[in-house]
Amino acid sequence: MTAEEITKMLKHVRRGKVSVEEAVDRLRNLPYEDLGYAKIDHHRSLRQGFPEVILARGKDPAQLEGIVRGMLARKHNILITRADSDLYDRIRKLDRRAAFHKLSGAITIVRDRKIRGKGQVLVVSAGTSDIPVAEEALVTAETMGNKVQSLYDVGVAGIHRLLGESRHLRGARVIIVVAGMEGALPSVVAGMVAVPVIAVPTSVGYGASFRGIAALLGMLNTCASNVAVVNIDNGFGAGYMASVINRL
Amino acid sequence: MTAEEITKMLKHVRRGKVSVEEAVDRLRNLPYEDLGYAKIDHHRSLRQGFPEVILARGKDPAQLEGIVRGMLARKHNILITRADSDLYDRIRKLDRRAAFHKLSGAITIVRDRKIRGKGQVLVVSAGTSDIPVAEEALVTAETMGNKVQSLYDVGVAGIHRLLGESRHLRGARVIIVVAGMEGALPSVVAGMVAVPVIAVPTSVGYGASFRGIAALLGMLNTCASNVAVVNIDNGFGAGYMASVINRL
Amino acid sequence: MTAEEITKMLKHVRRGKVSVEEAVDRLRNLPYEDLGYAKIDHHRSLRQGFPEVILARGKDPAQLEGIVRGMLARKHNILITRADSDLYDRIRKLDRRAAFHKLSGAITIVRDRKIRGKGQVLVVSAGTSDIPVAEEALVTAETMGNKVQSLYDVGVAGIHRLLGESRHLRGARVIIVVAGMEGALPSVVAGMVAVPVIAVPTSVGYGASFRGIAALLGMLNTCASNVAVVNIDNGFGAGYMASVINRL
Amino acid sequence: MTAEEITKMLKHVRRGKVSVEEAVDRLRNLPYEDLGYAKIDHHRSLRQGFPEVILARGKDPAQLEGIVRGMLARKHNILITRADSDLYDRIRKLDRRAAFHKLSGAITIVRDRKIRGKGQVLVVSAGTSDIPVAEEALVTAETMGNKVQSLYDVGVAGIHRLLGESRHLRGARVIIVVAGMEGALPSVVAGMVAVPVIAVPTSVGYGASFRGIAALLGMLNTCASNVAVVNIDNGFGAGYMASVINRL
Amino acid sequence: MTAEEITKMLKHVRRGKVSVEEAVDRLRNLPYEDLGYAKIDHHRSLRQGFPEVILARGKDPAQLEGIVRGMLARKHNILITRADSDLYDRIRKLDRRAAFHKLSGAITIVRDRKIRGKGQVLVVSAGTSDIPVAEEALVTAETMGNKVQSLYDVGVAGIHRLLGESRHLRGARVIIVVAGMEGALPSVVAGMVAVPVIAVPTSVGYGASFRGIAALLGMLNTCASNVAVVNIDNGFGAGYMASVINRL
Amino acid sequence: MTAEEITKMLKHVRRGKVSVEEAVDRLRNLPYEDLGYAKIDHHRSLRQGFPEVILARGKDPAQLEGIVRGMLARKHNILITRADSDLYDRIRKLDRRAAFHKLSGAITIVRDRKIRGKGQVLVVSAGTSDIPVAEEALVTAETMGNKVQSLYDVGVAGIHRLLGESRHLRGARVIIVVAGMEGALPSVVAGMVAVPVIAVPTSVGYGASFRGIAALLGMLNTCASNVAVVNIDNGFGAGYMASVINRL
Amino acid sequence: MTAEEITKMLKHVRRGKVSVEEAVDRLRNLPYEDLGYAKIDHHRSLRQGFPEVILARGKDPAQLEGIVRGMLARKHNILITRADSDLYDRIRKLDRRAAFHKLSGAITIVRDRKIRGKGQVLVVSAGTSDIPVAEEALVTAETMGNKVQSLYDVGVAGIHRLLGESRHLRGARVIIVVAGMEGALPSVVAGMVAVPVIAVPTSVGYGASFRGIAALLGMLNTCASNVAVVNIDNGFGAGYMASVINRL
Amino acid sequence: MTAEEITKMLKHVRRGKVSVEEAVDRLRNLPYEDLGYAKIDHHRSLRQGFPEVILARGKDPAQLEGIVRGMLARKHNILITRADSDLYDRIRKLDRRAAFHKLSGAITIVRDRKIRGKGQVLVVSAGTSDIPVAEEALVTAETMGNKVQSLYDVGVAGIHRLLGESRHLRGARVIIVVAGMEGALPSVVAGMVAVPVIAVPTSVGYGASFRGIAALLGMLNTCASNVAVVNIDNGFGAGYMASVINRL
Repeated sequence: MTAEEITKMLKHVRRGKVSVEEAVDRLRNLPYEDLGYAKIDHHRSLRQGFPEVILARGKDPAQLEGIVRGMLARKHNILITRADSDLYDRIRKLDRRAAFHKLSGAITIVRDRKIRGKGQVLVVSAGTSDIPVAEEALVTAETMGNKVQSLYDVGVAGIHRLLGESRHLRGARVIIVVAGMEGALPSVVAGMVAVPVIAVPTSVGYGASFRGIAALLGMLNTCASNVAVVNIDNGFGAGYMASVINRL
Repeated sequence: MTAEEITKMLKHVRRGKVSVEEAVDRLRNLPYEDLGYAKIDHHRSLRQGFPEVILARGKDPAQLEGIVRGMLARKHNILITRADSDLYDRIRKLDRRAAFHKLSGAITIVRDRKIRGKGQVLVVSAGTSDIPVAEEALVTAETMGNKVQSLYDVGVAGIHRLLGESRHLRGARVIIVVAGMEGALPSVVAGMVAVPVIAVPTSVGYGASFRGIAALLGMLNTCASNVAVVNIDNGFGAGYMASVINRL
Repeated sequence: MTAEEITKMLKHVRRGKVSVEEAVDRLRNLPYEDLGYAKIDHHRSLRQGFPEVILARGKDPAQLEGIVRGMLARKHNILITRADSDLYDRIRKLDRRAAFHKLSGAITIVRDRKIRGKGQVLVVSAGTSDIPVAEEALVTAETMGNKVQSLYDVGVAGIHRLLGESRHLRGARVIIVVAGMEGALPSVVAGMVAVPVIAVPTSVGYGASFRGIAALLGMLNTCASNVAVVNIDNGFGAGYMASVINRL
Repeated sequence: MTAEEITKMLKHVRRGKVSVEEAVDRLRNLPYEDLGYAKIDHHRSLRQGFPEVILARGKDPAQLEGIVRGMLARKHNILITRADSDLYDRIRKLDRRAAFHKLSGAITIVRDRKIRGKGQVLVVSAGTSDIPVAEEALVTAETMGNKVQSLYDVGVAGIHRLLGESRHLRGARVIIVVAGMEGALPSVVAGMVAVPVIAVPTSVGYGASFRGIAALLGMLNTCASNVAVVNIDNGFGAGYMASVINRL
Repeated sequence: MTAEEITKMLKHVRRGKVSVEEAVDRLRNLPYEDLGYAKIDHHRSLRQGFPEVILARGKDPAQLEGIVRGMLARKHNILITRADSDLYDRIRKLDRRAAFHKLSGAITIVRDRKIRGKGQVLVVSAGTSDIPVAEEALVTAETMGNKVQSLYDVGVAGIHRLLGESRHLRGARVIIVVAGMEGALPSVVAGMVAVPVIAVPTSVGYGASFRGIAALLGMLNTCASNVAVVNIDNGFGAGYMASVINRL
Repeated sequence: MTAEEITKMLKHVRRGKVSVEEAVDRLRNLPYEDLGYAKIDHHRSLRQGFPEVILARGKDPAQLEGIVRGMLARKHNILITRADSDLYDRIRKLDRRAAFHKLSGAITIVRDRKIRGKGQVLVVSAGTSDIPVAEEALVTAETMGNKVQSLYDVGVAGIHRLLGESRHLRGARVIIVVAGMEGALPSVVAGMVAVPVIAVPTSVGYGASFRGIAALLGMLNTCASNVAVVNIDNGFGAGYMASVINRL
Repeated sequence: MTAEEITKMLKHVRRGKVSVEEAVDRLRNLPYEDLGYAKIDHHRSLRQGFPEVILARGKDPAQLEGIVRGMLARKHNILITRADSDLYDRIRKLDRRAAFHKLSGAITIVRDRKIRGKGQVLVVSAGTSDIPVAEEALVTAETMGNKVQSLYDVGVAGIHRLLGESRHLRGARVIIVVAGMEGALPSVVAGMVAVPVIAVPTSVGYGASFRGIAALLGMLNTCASNVAVVNIDNGFGAGYMASVINRL
Repeated sequence: MTAEEITKMLKHVRRGKVSVEEAVDRLRNLPYEDLGYAKIDHHRSLRQGFPEVILARGKDPAQLEGIVRGMLARKHNILITRADSDLYDRIRKLDRRAAFHKLSGAITIVRDRKIRGKGQVLVVSAGTSDIPVAEEALVTAETMGNKVQSLYDVGVAGIHRLLGESRHLRGARVIIVVAGMEGALPSVVAGMVAVPVIAVPTSVGYGASFRGIAALLGMLNTCASNVAVVNIDNGFGAGYMASVINRL
């Protein structure tokens, strides 16, 4: 309810077109239905091009099927993260457009293919074991209406491979860098470009990698200034953040 | 050296205008002087509107004065972080435009006031003790050519104060949220807007805050998806990252 | 044995009604049978309305059945935490009143429905994955004779949902807040009420949530002062503590 | 603004006693001025018997003096934590009732001596080095209108001293237990009573006490169920929480 | 080779009964065969009453059977820790005296029943889940020739039960205290006696017990001075250390 | 009060020699004055040869002087740990027998020189920086009536020096091993002897020694079984524990 | 492309033998194909005697078979780490020379048996459970063309066994020391030799070994100076590093 | 005593030139004076070119002067680490050749300038704040008889600077890489060369660098295989280890 709408309603009250009781009732719902911040409530699904997102892990297939069925009544893209092929078999029966992204375990139902990101989102990763997280970021960014590109297996111990791809780096508007172990790749990449870099530590590694802590600390201590970090293995968060930036 | 310049030089070689020796010499310097990625070398200071930055802590005043003197020969804005009023007295003698930002300990010499950021950078902080870090972010963003605004003392235990300022939140293109203790503010702010939020944990707190670890973990585990995190107390990094995003 | 009883006995000694030997014997047992603090021994089961509690995890079904059989001879409510449906099948055969609380894995046998808590205990939780712990707190408080109410899925990244329920918050005498990930909800809730808030961190989350440490630290560092914290995933402890407070 | 007040205002609108413009204006301010949760804003200082609290550490004396001067215009008790005798000299000049609590470093200006807590708040501590934190809890509870009592130097390695004081324990309505090193005292105390116990770990100790972590973990893992924990050295928080409970 | 044997050999050299070459050869092997410290090599199995010990976990049954078969050729007691009933079935076929201690998973073959410890070793434990570790300590001490006694389920939250058993505590020459969760029991016990207390933290607990770290830190920070600590869950080590002390 | 004394008193009651009132009075004080465990109260100072101990750190000189003055009225040895030469100057004025142990910062007043330990307590240390802690252990054991010996600077990286002293090792009844950095020395020493070894980690080292954690973990994970550990830098505790063992 | 080759090409340009376009093309590829550092790209497989290495864990057998098939077309030794006997069955069908090293789970296909290391690489380990990691180091060093020797089960608690083998230690040019638990062995070994020691912590142990952290910290804090450390359980890395040193 | 010397002595025994008593006496001292490993004792100072090393921190100037005076009687190089200019003034009076290395705080007295290392030791560092540690490594390697070279300020966020220096990298026989913050430089350097890389984490950084832990973990998790790590800030250890390798 905008100030104008309230003004209008109050005029109706004055004119007797709306009863006092009804007006009170409408106003009572106001704080969490109509005030500015109330719009937040549905902002993820209501704003153009934001997908509806479900984390599959820890939910049972029937429950998930029910949620998706509800979502299909609306028109947004649907993104299910951390799923498996069994769930995919169920979902495909609901909508033929469902696609399974095996590497990341994501299922997408893309119904709105409009490109809303202004540039390209590039996903860079260090080792082959980082690819599941990298792909989750990629699929997320794509489902949210971005042109995406990937550049994998360019770890810092073979730095010339990365340098050989500097053209790709310079073509991106936002870069997501996914790395486990020592987590050094975001620093190197960020030093080569002037765009924002979202760093994603992965739990890849063993021993003193402490399931991603080493990579996380490495990224937080980056000597490059155009880097910010998301949680360990949080490919979805990186893809989402990159999309939000790429729409600016 | 662009491909065109190389072509031109080679034509000169063919025509005898440039000797083979000289051409070899020029090419030898090529990998780290003229190739695409070589431009990175000076990118911070050479690109328009990026300030020259010095971390004062751990350097002696005479040394710092020398560095600044050198920088004054160029035309960029100058940002000195974690300085004090003694250093300011020295610097002001070098350039009357020098300003001391007491709360953050930053010194700036602004010579280029062009606004390059496309929108407003808003810096939000939770408690009064977070202000030094928040101010460092603010000064950094401003020195890098952004319109900036601050919104302080809006901690989550008095959530209505934040809600009362939701209009300010919605006016920003990039938001920096600075918080110590439990580090919950970025989640709340990010849930109220659709723009990127850069979260800065501070070492404010005592006991189980572990000098910022509690806030850092809180921010990494945010349930909002439009948040990415920088290092503890890294106001400069947040201001820089926000500036890079705001120029997109 | 009170001072009066001792006096009485000594008079009997003087009068020869009680032999010296018998008096010595009685006094010898005194420290751990009759002194005030000895009453603590059975205080959980003997005091009105305190349930007999068994932690099922790590005990075998037959052993548990035996314990419950023993408890049924007394009249208290019985609460079995972290159980499963198999155990429930066994227990139901012992007493038809047994109920299985699927979400938390708790089994209750309620034989005493007297309400002893003076007000309402409200259990608030952030995400759907926190519900098992929240339900354990709820069932515990209910079995201990409290009016209980729940308010789930009101995380801080959608703060208006919580605000929309502020009436519920204000109706409670003690509030339990259950949250994983960044653990920020207790601070927000505590800032909206003037009653005690018991915070329960959960091990929900991944990566840098470190199985509940992030949430725990967040809660310990709360900027609200009417908050105290129990162990990670300790729904039972929170429900018990809330009940103890609600009887005051 | 209650629903009744809104109804009344709308009737005035209908009758023309209040203009539409004025009604819109009043309603616009409503979300953060008049709705229920808006009352939270000033709840600490406005509600009866809640003191105005200042953390002195990190603020300069002149600034603190200014804050206190402002508070003196109102009528609440004033509590300054972590202060020193220099600050006290300044404050005493502002108000002769100012008292300095040397052990905890707290300064109080008590202007409202009404007892609001329904029972006694007992503060128990293990060693002499825990006393500063214990005293902070004690002074806080007293300033908030509670009858308070202390029981110090009753560590678990001399358990009979604690047992000898069991009468004091049983006389309390809420107990605060302050302990460093292994943090075992809250478990023992809680096992002897049926009232809520607020546990405060202190940073007292050396080596593997890790500045209070050992005590904190000990308290979180208590085998007693009527215990909840606040942050390391947070005597103020414990005193506040105990007061909130004692008013129920 | 003792000094006397060397003297004897050298006399033989002088008399020509032993050739220089042979003497050199014998002396060459001397440092690790005959010097004092070389006796250490076999000290565990060769010294009277020390059992031969095998840690079963991580070894396969056939391999274990082979090792035991070899040990049976000698005459010491045999102790196999962390075994299971399957292994027991195999071992019993080798020697009828084999006994399986179900609670701790230990298998013993006792062939030497001589009591070598001068007093009684008492094993105290806090909760029922600590019993496997307590039993491992008990069986170890018994197999090493000590009179042993146990006192279980005397946690600090029910301190009077422990006090009721103070006579048992005072009858012991060495006490082992096993506790998980907050690990407070050793402090309390040590405060009640004047003999050495060996504290064993267990990994029992959840959440912030961090698999025994809370208990370990609690024990290291004990305020009693007659306590020393062994590794988490190390019942064997505690039993061994207590035996070494009890033989003094 | 023993059972016999109680019997005697009750007979007096019967005979009218003691009034009922007086008997009640005596019995009332019984739980913490006369029962078995009550003896614990003063056990440190009352039992023969146990010194009275004060930790100087954190107490002011005048306060310490007062405590010592009180102790001098009794006849026990006095041990002040972590003191300095200023305090020593004060204490020497109280009693000429006071001695200052510069290396450890301990002050002793030895008035009872009776040897109560049955064998020798040997203190072994790895590096010169471990000596303050080693000396604290040595002085403690000596003040408690033990024959003591030290063996310093025998670190594991020069293992032959230790081997050359194996005779000293074998002459001890209890061994205290003090080591920082990797904390490996207790394992090596314990493997060479059959007596109990008390291991003391020190905070000596830098970087990844984490102020003694590395040494502490090393000692807890020792592959020798006749080792138990006390807190980091806790020389006093080790000396006390060794004394308790050496009296058995 | 060396400077000479560039000179030659430029002469051809001058003489018209190479067109300007072609020259530009060749130069464009220069930075990552021909410059010195570009040789790094293939350095592992191309340099003499370096094996091609695959980490089997986390890859599926068919994929691994494909990779090996590709490698067989070249002539280097092949090393597959962390494999199992099932994979071995597949690989043996591809090449009869495949060998399975059961203890470490490594598979090797050795086609180049030339010894390239100048001396002997000795692998020392503390306990039997460290052998898998030790063997991985051994197999790696051997496959890379080194003479290797092993010395197992020489833990520090039986130091004379190690001393008895000092001849073996002195025969090595590089020593790898593998140890879990307290990780003390590298210090002792390094103190006995003058050659470089590579220390490998293992995750062997329980309780406070924290899956190798205790051993890692022990090794980092070694009091010997000829020691450097690799990651927990990283037998491969130690074998590789030792080989690189042994070729110098 | 070599085997030959023993043979000789035994022949003397046979011939009666040496009495049996004297021979026994000599042999008794044998294990720690003459056997092979006994040579270790003095190996640091006695072997050619190994300096005598003193850690100044924590020792007083007079004590240090005394130690150096003693060392001057021998002929080795002397290295004092972590010293200051005051100490230097004292030392210079003892020997005019003393040099103070201001950046690292090292003092050297070089009396033996023979080059013993076979190649060049290169010290690479990331930031200017890492230089003190880098210089300590450099000075150590130089004092131990190596040709040394340094390459500073080549952090990974400006990777082209490092690439521009690849020639220097390829000229080294052993490389020491010193880095704080994310500790990524060793991985990049090691990927560019085929020689051993010794990585030294520094405590440079703030916030989540945790005084060098981030860098340490980064280095332990390096994806390059020719890297091993020493303790945080341990420049001396790295220089020593590099020297040991460079002599092979």
